[in-house]
Amino acid sequence: MGQIRLYIAQPLTVGSEVVLNEQQSHYLTHVMKLKVGDTISCFDNQSGEYGCTLIAVGKKQTTLKVLEHHKPYAQTPDIWLLFAPVKKDNTDFIIQKATELGVRKIIPVQTRYTITERIKRERFEAQAIEAAEQCRRVDLPQIAEIKKFDDILQQWDKTRILYYMDETLTGKPIAQALENAKSCAILVGPEGGFSAEELEKLRGLSFARAVCLGPRILRAETAVVSALSCWQALKGDWQ
Amino acid sequence: MGQIRLYIAQPLTVGSEVVLNEQQSHYLTHVMKLKVGDTISCFDNQSGEYGCTLIAVGKKQTTLKVLEHHKPYAQTPDIWLLFAPVKKDNTDFIIQKATELGVRKIIPVQTRYTITERIKRERFEAQAIEAAEQCRRVDLPQIAEIKKFDDILQQWDKTRILYYMDETLTGKPIAQALENAKSCAILVGPEGGFSAEELEKLRGLSFARAVCLGPRILRAETAVVSALSCWQALKGDWQ
Repeated sequence: MGQIRLYIAQPLTVGSEVVLNEQQSHYLTHVMKLKVGDTISCFDNQSGEYGCTLIAVGKKQTTLKVLEHHKPYAQTPDIWLLFAPVKKDNTDFIIQKATELGVRKIIPVQTRYTITERIKRERFEAQAIEAAEQCRRVDLPQIAEIKKFDDILQQWDKTRILYYMDETLTGKPIAQALENAKSCAILVGPEGGFSAEELEKLRGLSFARAVCLGPRILRAETAVVSALSCWQALKGDWQ
Repeated sequence: MGQIRLYIAQPLTVGSEVVLNEQQSHYLTHVMKLKVGDTISCFDNQSGEYGCTLIAVGKKQTTLKVLEHHKPYAQTPDIWLLFAPVKKDNTDFIIQKATELGVRKIIPVQTRYTITERIKRERFEAQAIEAAEQCRRVDLPQIAEIKKFDDILQQWDKTRILYYMDETLTGKPIAQALENAKSCAILVGPEGGFSAEELEKLRGLSFARAVCLGPRILRAETAVVSALSCWQALKGDWQ
């Protein structure tokens, strides 16, 4: 099967035909120069990955036939990411990397220092789809609407431990903090960190744990990749 | 002391005066709008960090006075990064993140699929300085000239274990691979991976160890951040 992978927003079954939307059609035939008979991989975020072949190429429309089921559906491990959107490029980067690193759910959080002007869920979803296609996931991360810091904490399921990256150097080293972790979530604050009130709130919560990522100051997007990588290595599907 | 931090390319001592170059002068007085009497932090990559105050601001020249020594010099842990440069932005990103993550030495490697058109060591050094200023390191990573894959392996000090990120899923999980790690180096291939011959060579070396970063395909820059984060968490100064 070819290296090209597409997410198809409808259920796939062997033998069925799929008419691609204009954007995907353009990508396959004009960008990647595929012809009738070429093969690609597709996944539908519910039944796994399929080998497909192009059976018709038109001006604005391309049709695929689903040939075989070659990978079952599976969800990535039960890890969530909560992050505070900041600059547009960094936010795109965080969505992309969290998807590559196998996060199951992404929740943008409005903290005191979050910049929320440019929060567009459709944009986040497009970034996640592109990253999932590229990294060979067969599922997509769920992307929640942005929520306020206080609301998230009030509605939190207390059985899910919330590890927050604490720049004040008072948290536990991450390898130690994650020792007994199971279902959990990683919370990374914005550039500028959490406010003093936010940190105080976090410190008072039974389900929250302060984590320290070493003596250097990491940018928010670095902290996201670092924390998720450590979790996958110690508790997730990199074991 | 202020939040602004500058690397000064000359030895600092308490009581001495430093005439800044035009670029740093412009940054402090025009970008950051500092005035005589304002304070910043400076480090010289050999004796630590100092609190300094602006004592003269001219059109093209700014003078600092070194007031106090407030942090001793220390090198980051003994971890090296070998990476294969690819696209310009990703390469910049790798230098920046490796610096934030406390790498002591960075060696660009020319592998079969490396794109070497844009390798400029001065550019790498500028990226590393900026990241070191921001993340509060008091040392700079050493940046080597680009070397050929074969030459690096032939001249390698065999007591330093070389962990290479192996996309063929045959390596050890990273947490397990790093169990007995001490002085070591992380090698990440380019987009497109190592060639078959390169992988075969690596597999035959007594000092090289294949590492697997999970079932998803990571981009080169993600693999760099992931591997360095795991090393710092398990063996470095995040413990």
